[in-house]
Amino acid sequence: MYFASDNWAGAHPSIAARLVEEAPGFAAPYGVSDLDRKVEARLSEIFECDVSVFFVATGTAANSLALASVGKPGGVIFCHSEAHVTADECGAPEFITGANRLHTIPGLNGKMDPKALEAAIWRFAPGAVHQGRAAAVTLTQSTEVGTIYSLAEIDAIAAIARAHGLPLHMDGARFANALVRLDATPAEMTWKRGVDILSFGGTKNGCWCAEAVIFFNRELAADMPYLRKRSAQLFSKTRFISAQFDAYLEDGLWLTMAKNANDMAERLSAGLEALNSARLAWPSQANEVFAVLPGEKAAAAEAAGARFYRWDAPRDMPGLLEDGEVLIRLVTSFATTREDVEAFLSICSA
Amino acid sequence: MYFASDNWAGAHPSIAARLVEEAPGFAAPYGVSDLDRKVEARLSEIFECDVSVFFVATGTAANSLALASVGKPGGVIFCHSEAHVTADECGAPEFITGANRLHTIPGLNGKMDPKALEAAIWRFAPGAVHQGRAAAVTLTQSTEVGTIYSLAEIDAIAAIARAHGLPLHMDGARFANALVRLDATPAEMTWKRGVDILSFGGTKNGCWCAEAVIFFNRELAADMPYLRKRSAQLFSKTRFISAQFDAYLEDGLWLTMAKNANDMAERLSAGLEALNSARLAWPSQANEVFAVLPGEKAAAAEAAGARFYRWDAPRDMPGLLEDGEVLIRLVTSFATTREDVEAFLSICSA
Amino acid sequence: MYFASDNWAGAHPSIAARLVEEAPGFAAPYGVSDLDRKVEARLSEIFECDVSVFFVATGTAANSLALASVGKPGGVIFCHSEAHVTADECGAPEFITGANRLHTIPGLNGKMDPKALEAAIWRFAPGAVHQGRAAAVTLTQSTEVGTIYSLAEIDAIAAIARAHGLPLHMDGARFANALVRLDATPAEMTWKRGVDILSFGGTKNGCWCAEAVIFFNRELAADMPYLRKRSAQLFSKTRFISAQFDAYLEDGLWLTMAKNANDMAERLSAGLEALNSARLAWPSQANEVFAVLPGEKAAAAEAAGARFYRWDAPRDMPGLLEDGEVLIRLVTSFATTREDVEAFLSICSA
Amino acid sequence: MYFASDNWAGAHPSIAARLVEEAPGFAAPYGVSDLDRKVEARLSEIFECDVSVFFVATGTAANSLALASVGKPGGVIFCHSEAHVTADECGAPEFITGANRLHTIPGLNGKMDPKALEAAIWRFAPGAVHQGRAAAVTLTQSTEVGTIYSLAEIDAIAAIARAHGLPLHMDGARFANALVRLDATPAEMTWKRGVDILSFGGTKNGCWCAEAVIFFNRELAADMPYLRKRSAQLFSKTRFISAQFDAYLEDGLWLTMAKNANDMAERLSAGLEALNSARLAWPSQANEVFAVLPGEKAAAAEAAGARFYRWDAPRDMPGLLEDGEVLIRLVTSFATTREDVEAFLSICSA
Repeated sequence: MYFASDNWAGAHPSIAARLVEEAPGFAAPYGVSDLDRKVEARLSEIFECDVSVFFVATGTAANSLALASVGKPGGVIFCHSEAHVTADECGAPEFITGANRLHTIPGLNGKMDPKALEAAIWRFAPGAVHQGRAAAVTLTQSTEVGTIYSLAEIDAIAAIARAHGLPLHMDGARFANALVRLDATPAEMTWKRGVDILSFGGTKNGCWCAEAVIFFNRELAADMPYLRKRSAQLFSKTRFISAQFDAYLEDGLWLTMAKNANDMAERLSAGLEALNSARLAWPSQANEVFAVLPGEKAAAAEAAGARFYRWDAPRDMPGLLEDGEVLIRLVTSFATTREDVEAFLSICSA
Repeated sequence: MYFASDNWAGAHPSIAARLVEEAPGFAAPYGVSDLDRKVEARLSEIFECDVSVFFVATGTAANSLALASVGKPGGVIFCHSEAHVTADECGAPEFITGANRLHTIPGLNGKMDPKALEAAIWRFAPGAVHQGRAAAVTLTQSTEVGTIYSLAEIDAIAAIARAHGLPLHMDGARFANALVRLDATPAEMTWKRGVDILSFGGTKNGCWCAEAVIFFNRELAADMPYLRKRSAQLFSKTRFISAQFDAYLEDGLWLTMAKNANDMAERLSAGLEALNSARLAWPSQANEVFAVLPGEKAAAAEAAGARFYRWDAPRDMPGLLEDGEVLIRLVTSFATTREDVEAFLSICSA
Repeated sequence: MYFASDNWAGAHPSIAARLVEEAPGFAAPYGVSDLDRKVEARLSEIFECDVSVFFVATGTAANSLALASVGKPGGVIFCHSEAHVTADECGAPEFITGANRLHTIPGLNGKMDPKALEAAIWRFAPGAVHQGRAAAVTLTQSTEVGTIYSLAEIDAIAAIARAHGLPLHMDGARFANALVRLDATPAEMTWKRGVDILSFGGTKNGCWCAEAVIFFNRELAADMPYLRKRSAQLFSKTRFISAQFDAYLEDGLWLTMAKNANDMAERLSAGLEALNSARLAWPSQANEVFAVLPGEKAAAAEAAGARFYRWDAPRDMPGLLEDGEVLIRLVTSFATTREDVEAFLSICSA
Repeated sequence: MYFASDNWAGAHPSIAARLVEEAPGFAAPYGVSDLDRKVEARLSEIFECDVSVFFVATGTAANSLALASVGKPGGVIFCHSEAHVTADECGAPEFITGANRLHTIPGLNGKMDPKALEAAIWRFAPGAVHQGRAAAVTLTQSTEVGTIYSLAEIDAIAAIARAHGLPLHMDGARFANALVRLDATPAEMTWKRGVDILSFGGTKNGCWCAEAVIFFNRELAADMPYLRKRSAQLFSKTRFISAQFDAYLEDGLWLTMAKNANDMAERLSAGLEALNSARLAWPSQANEVFAVLPGEKAAAAEAAGARFYRWDAPRDMPGLLEDGEVLIRLVTSFATTREDVEAFLSICSA
């Protein structure tokens, strides 16, 4: 019953096998091997667009470098108040962008409220040197609370960014989970909506370590080779990242894995909602379930070996928990089984 | 004939196998899995000392974060003029240390001259606010030009660092190659000499991606968890780094691989020196050979498919090359074969 | 009718005269002239405590460097949501601290709510590497909305900071205005309450350019000489800053000037409150008055030549303004006259 | 006998008087007062070119921000090995540019050797991501060793910068001294030669605190308002900087003051050269004299109350000093008198 995070899972056998295959022989390092090129071409195909691709070590690196490529002196970047970039990256985006600031935007269900975004951007209009200047907008898809921006909702955010001349970044640490849920193409969920840069994550979805920054607007990538190297994020043996992505993208493995994660989350959330004693904090649309339940149920599950995190209630939801209740986060992955889900539910319903 | 760099080689079969073994199952992320703990304990054993270990993505990250952990506002860090940190890391040490500066020290054979080091440190004595202040000393073992500091030479550098209260860092991107050559223990080549922090590299010696910062002086590691996360260098699925190190350190695999690389370099350098038309720029003591040879020989080798880099002559060796000569760098690895070496030599002697 | 800011005023004649007196002759630069030493001694006397004093160019520099001296990698600094450091310094604190983050705390009347502060600090407890770690607390006295922390209110904030081992900084851009209002001694309003570092501002209160960072906890100043120089804030001819402070502190000139500013603000706020058509957004306790009044009154005052700023309503006071109303900020200074105040009030009451 | 530095002198009476004149009244802050505008217009007139002007607190700030406006991720900036930016600014340029690096170029008499510059730039050609990329060239006029680039010498440096597409910055901390010596116009010594940005210093030449960054290539100033504010260098009461420059530039006061400094240096250097026991380390062309003389002469002068610095011999001039000799630096200013010079010379000739 491992629900602590999707990064507790290991690697899919096909990905492991592909890595072993690539172990012997020699190849050019630093992103210019044949396999690196193949993966880049494959991503261009998948996204139906000539993209620039930069492998990096972590999702935090992908986000931070994506934002650094559009940051500015005095820059302000807009994100949701629960966004990973502001809540869970220890200031890496601020550090790697050279001290751009993150300005948080409220919004229901982990999604920025367009009106609040619009209002916030105006506070950093050109010329307001004391306040600083708007530099970019970033949204997370799937969101940190397990919800998903609909295509129309992405359009609404993108329209505001475009009107202010701001690049739009998408943190896609759980990109595949959203894609599968929306039944959209990668292009439809990104550049066709106005997304300029994507953090494309594979690690949480069955890879060992596979993260990339993908530029749809390739002009924005001009500084990226230097930004990445200066942040010590340029792997030498890049073919081993490429090998993972190669297997990941083959025959829709990435979507298959995401679908399993989503399905297990759906089963989990349906099961919890069916209980009198539990409810969801937010609708569960991807592979995360945030459940409110009595503290003794959570303790019982822990005692039975279930692994998950007790979560702080967001600052703007003060009434979320009643006496004795706790908020917990359950994350599923490609490796989550129906048995684990059932076992967890049966403890909670006991 | 792949002599371009040791990072053109892939991964040793034992390391690949160990990774596959680790693929299934669940494990705690971010450096606290059982396997992570096991590798830390193993490193403490190998170094005969309780060490603190931090995995990072690249050798540049290991160096930069090691130096960041001892950097200061206005800090100046001393390194050889050919050091990787100053010559090949695109300013990452400066960036990640928050703008500490690297002050280069001359010295024969890629090794800092102790007298020059001593003199330089005095220019940054406490209180000289305009100049800044000495913050650390870093040396590379094996050096960037394929030589090795003897234990006595490390002692000489360490004595100066200690006298000025400066931490001593060792860039060990090619640590194993030096260890094998000196026939010393890991402890003898590091903390017993006065080294406080080590960049312990596995990638160039048969791993896929395995780099660690090792603190012998554990007090210096106090900020490291935050420094690493803030630089986006904290892997989630750390067990896959650990798995590599686990196999790497088992039954002396790391030393066996380094020995092959060294042996092949020795064979290469001996073969070149035996030719009338070639000579070594520096003694070849580890797995790198820097050879001066006629331009047409280098071109012939390239035409035959040999891969290597033409190298700039160092600024302080203006008379190194005669008319028509070029300086080339040849690097061997765990995967280099005797056949490749012979093939290369036969082209050069033709 | 200059109410735009206290930095629209010039310099008090005594300060100008003292500068002229100091113009001839030679003196040691960079903070070690006899006059620099005298001013330091005088400040130690005034604060009844051996202080370390560092002159800098601007209030933003004083705040940023004070915070840099206690910042940490991954550090989080707590301030009110209206604080100058977060609202009006273009990211200078983030930049100069090497990317520490500012975490805003709500609170009525521009003052941090102690409970909200306490709760926020817990989110950045030691070991929470993804969130980062609490590094310092900063409060502004007088606040940005013209109110004043009582001594007991400072105690409450200081107790929380102390309990968490966090240094406490006070932004004293308008220090004298608060001091005069509270009728406290400088020591009582600072280190006797638990303040460790003070941004001591003279510019807004009759100097030309006189800002200092004052350390009551002198150990925290260890890096400051380098931090200041590295931020290009070390003046050469420091005696001209000292000369200003020398006159400023002589015979209580600083308090006299602050008192005039406060008195004029009191007269202004009393006059506005007496009108049916205006009300105060916050109580006016120092030299700033934030008034809500009908848009046409503000326009009439502007048309008559009055200078002031129209102000954005704070994000957490959505109901502050009714239809047609505007929020304006009026700032008084040592140079504000009763005539100007009367003239302004008579326009508003017309 | 104050020869320690030109910043030991105070302020010229005309500048003091102009400041007093400006003390009363109200004016818009942050660089937009009428007087600020007047000084900008006057500088455009003097430089025969529409310039953008940014006041800052110190010469180090002017240099650092000028370089920040043209810095890049991974950027490398070329300067002479004795340049103030690399030798005396505690890493401020590196910090404020966000970790661009300074690469030193050798050259006789404190001036970059064009061939060495050209060769160095090639090491940082586009695409060499490990090395980083060339970002700018900076030269100091007058140089740190008291010499002056001729117009043709500036041309030679500028031609190289232009050929590589690199902006050219001039550190003009002692700009007026060079101008007077060359008998050139400000335009002829700057943009007509290819200089894009100038650090225009008034402090060392009779002001209290008056430094400006002047952009001839105004497009390069696009980020400057934010860079300056983010570095806490935006004064509020800017009119007091403007007042100094206003008097400084009136009736050629700046040139008159520089001429006195140069004349006194000339008298000093001629007097020293006439002695058997002394010689100049470099030709004295502006207001600095670097003299080699017996240690006992220096000691005698110190004993008689003369103030000057003993100087380290540059690293690349190992044979400069013979046994018992010392290198001293003597700096003259607008306030240096013939009497002081004579007194110093008579001690040395005793």
